[in-house]
Amino acid sequence: MGEQRRILVDMDGVLADFEKGFLDEWKREHPDLPYVPIRDRRTFYHMDQYPAEHKDLIYEIVDRPYFYGNLEPIRGGREALEEMRGLGWDVRICTSPSISNYEGCVPGKFMWVHKYLGKDWLHRLVLTKDKTIVDGDVLIDDKSRIDGIVARPSWEHVLYDQPHNRWLKMTKRLTWENWKEVLGV
Amino acid sequence: MGEQRRILVDMDGVLADFEKGFLDEWKREHPDLPYVPIRDRRTFYHMDQYPAEHKDLIYEIVDRPYFYGNLEPIRGGREALEEMRGLGWDVRICTSPSISNYEGCVPGKFMWVHKYLGKDWLHRLVLTKDKTIVDGDVLIDDKSRIDGIVARPSWEHVLYDQPHNRWLKMTKRLTWENWKEVLGV
Repeated sequence: MGEQRRILVDMDGVLADFEKGFLDEWKREHPDLPYVPIRDRRTFYHMDQYPAEHKDLIYEIVDRPYFYGNLEPIRGGREALEEMRGLGWDVRICTSPSISNYEGCVPGKFMWVHKYLGKDWLHRLVLTKDKTIVDGDVLIDDKSRIDGIVARPSWEHVLYDQPHNRWLKMTKRLTWENWKEVLGV
Repeated sequence: MGEQRRILVDMDGVLADFEKGFLDEWKREHPDLPYVPIRDRRTFYHMDQYPAEHKDLIYEIVDRPYFYGNLEPIRGGREALEEMRGLGWDVRICTSPSISNYEGCVPGKFMWVHKYLGKDWLHRLVLTKDKTIVDGDVLIDDKSRIDGIVARPSWEHVLYDQPHNRWLKMTKRLTWENWKEVLGV
């Protein structure tokens, strides 16, 4: 692994508030349609918890060019990243782009990092559908199952706590309040 | 490394013809200005071989939204990638985005892969400024020096032969004609 501890940090649901960004838009655009309050979310993908006939409406929102770029930051994320770097850790943002809508998603993710973390962090941004081939000690991700080609990745997966994953039994569960304790600082 | 041999393949100068794309545009836009024929190129960055006062003109070309998306494929690249996969290798495209112009460069790279290799390959695309943290057996890259945080990366660097690097002494030098021999197929 080299000398420094390397922490890979997912973006949506960990640094950028995808859940709030989606729900705000959904309510604004479709005030007459049902929605799932964030505390009641139980699936990683909205598709899996919204009625099937609303699939296109969901895509219509998340596929907009500026959707990813305009997500609000999750409180404490930036400060935690900077503190980790202060500890001498090698911190990387490791995010999986949308393939069906890369034109909107991919520049949006770069824009978000530029806007909320600063240009320096663009050098630390890794876009990959498969996170198992990225070398690290820890991956902080709100997705419970990280699939990829490598059966036993170099990193330990630490779940970022979100309502959609709260019903799952996972041993290590991190927030930007308890990260020092969970990561053993 | 896991079961499969993993080959990381750089994009510009290996799969996409950056040199030709740049020179064609340069001659078309600035027929009155001097240029460096591809066979006489000696530096990785054009900046380092063109007069300093033309720096902005160079940026003006490569920073266009569709510059990366419109590069011609390097002959034999696609076929080699498909053959490698046929051999059971895990093949990934590993490319470093421009930070100063991510709005133009990053979607352009996705567009290029989509257009010339097909949608399936978008799942195999990794964008990172630091390739040393990506796990692989071989990195095929025309850049002679691959800098990054990891002093001894997991992969062996095999230089993709280009006029700009031909003056360098490197043991392993690959083209899409000799790749089977170099990689020991």
